Amino acid sequence: MFITFEGLDFSGKSTQVKLLSDRLSLADHNVLVLREPGGTEIGEKIRKLLLDKATMGMTDVSELFLFSASRAQLVDEVVKPALEGGLVVVSDRYYDSTTAYQGWARGISLDSVNAINRCASGGIVPDLTFFLDIPVAEVERRIQRARSNKDRMESNGKEFYEKVRQGYLALAKQEKRFRVLDGEKGVDDLHDSIWQEVDSALKQTATGQPKK
Amino acid sequence: MFITFEGLDFSGKSTQVKLLSDRLSLADHNVLVLREPGGTEIGEKIRKLLLDKATMGMTDVSELFLFSASRAQLVDEVVKPALEGGLVVVSDRYYDSTTAYQGWARGISLDSVNAINRCASGGIVPDLTFFLDIPVAEVERRIQRARSNKDRMESNGKEFYEKVRQGYLALAKQEKRFRVLDGEKGVDDLHDSIWQEVDSALKQTATGQPKK
Repeated sequence: MFITFEGLDFSGKSTQVKLLSDRLSLADHNVLVLREPGGTEIGEKIRKLLLDKATMGMTDVSELFLFSASRAQLVDEVVKPALEGGLVVVSDRYYDSTTAYQGWARGISLDSVNAINRCASGGIVPDLTFFLDIPVAEVERRIQRARSNKDRMESNGKEFYEKVRQGYLALAKQEKRFRVLDGEKGVDDLHDSIWQEVDSALKQTATGQPKK
Repeated sequence: MFITFEGLDFSGKSTQVKLLSDRLSLADHNVLVLREPGGTEIGEKIRKLLLDKATMGMTDVSELFLFSASRAQLVDEVVKPALEGGLVVVSDRYYDSTTAYQGWARGISLDSVNAINRCASGGIVPDLTFFLDIPVAEVERRIQRARSNKDRMESNGKEFYEKVRQGYLALAKQEKRFRVLDGEKGVDDLHDSIWQEVDSALKQTATGQPKK
């Protein structure tokens, strides 16, 4: 089973990834937790290149391809073998991030982004995708509370994040695997909702019922 | 005007690129000569990553995306401004290499490769593309004569290069901008044929006639 988490920065993804993977381990599942970009030798080099971005004027399209190169390597080297080995794979972001950020927000044509995502993922589609939805104003409040990372938010601007959010909401309408969760709920409430979905999906898989 | 050279390794591309750019300069054109991948700060870092390839087990798809990331950066940073500034841009390889090598020879779906090429090139299509066609057996003879680079040829194998060549020939049938030249002709004969085409295309452009 392949589970991905999506959302704006500060939407609480990494907290929920951690809580879910701990719970899965407690329930005797072998779990692999991933973070994009990176996760392979090549992917980490690409990650470094992407983080150098600000100094070099990387174009949006070049950025899109670098994310995709890292993803293609990760899927082939890590995700596919893990899924074949029966592990539960939990990833903090996957290609829906590319659709929302590079497609919806940066304005690269969705046809191009979809073709590139299909190619990079080698047909590996998540079974479940949790979108932790919070309003952009709430992202700003959380940034102020954390007093961190403000530059990044400011450099992209509110409108950018509104577009990312709209992109995610559009995907959630199209893709059955999406679950939209109210990211303003408490951490434990959110985890309970997520666990309920995952547990039920795992039981379906175990009893041989089709996943969808 | 944007002119690209395509062909198998040892087909004589770099020699013809050099001869053409010298002739263009003599004829008072401002010329920019490019080599892929690379040509930008980001592109050179990607080039280094691609050359590290053998040691790291890079997947074909990851390789495709890295070439495309380098190309997207080169087109935006270098090719577009140069063409807008009226320069004649001559490139040793461009996206047709990706179609022939990654598509036809490595077997990545041509639909994916075409979508990726369109996105990476930002719609910048060459005005003229010279394919220096030589049989694969001739590549082998040239490698033996040069006593160099044999590993690379052997690692891919004859069948691989046959597929690359078939890919180029298929492209040449589809794309009006292609000129197929017999790469076994003498260097000066080839240069004369190339110059005739380029000179005539430049004159058409100068008199305001449509390029194609």
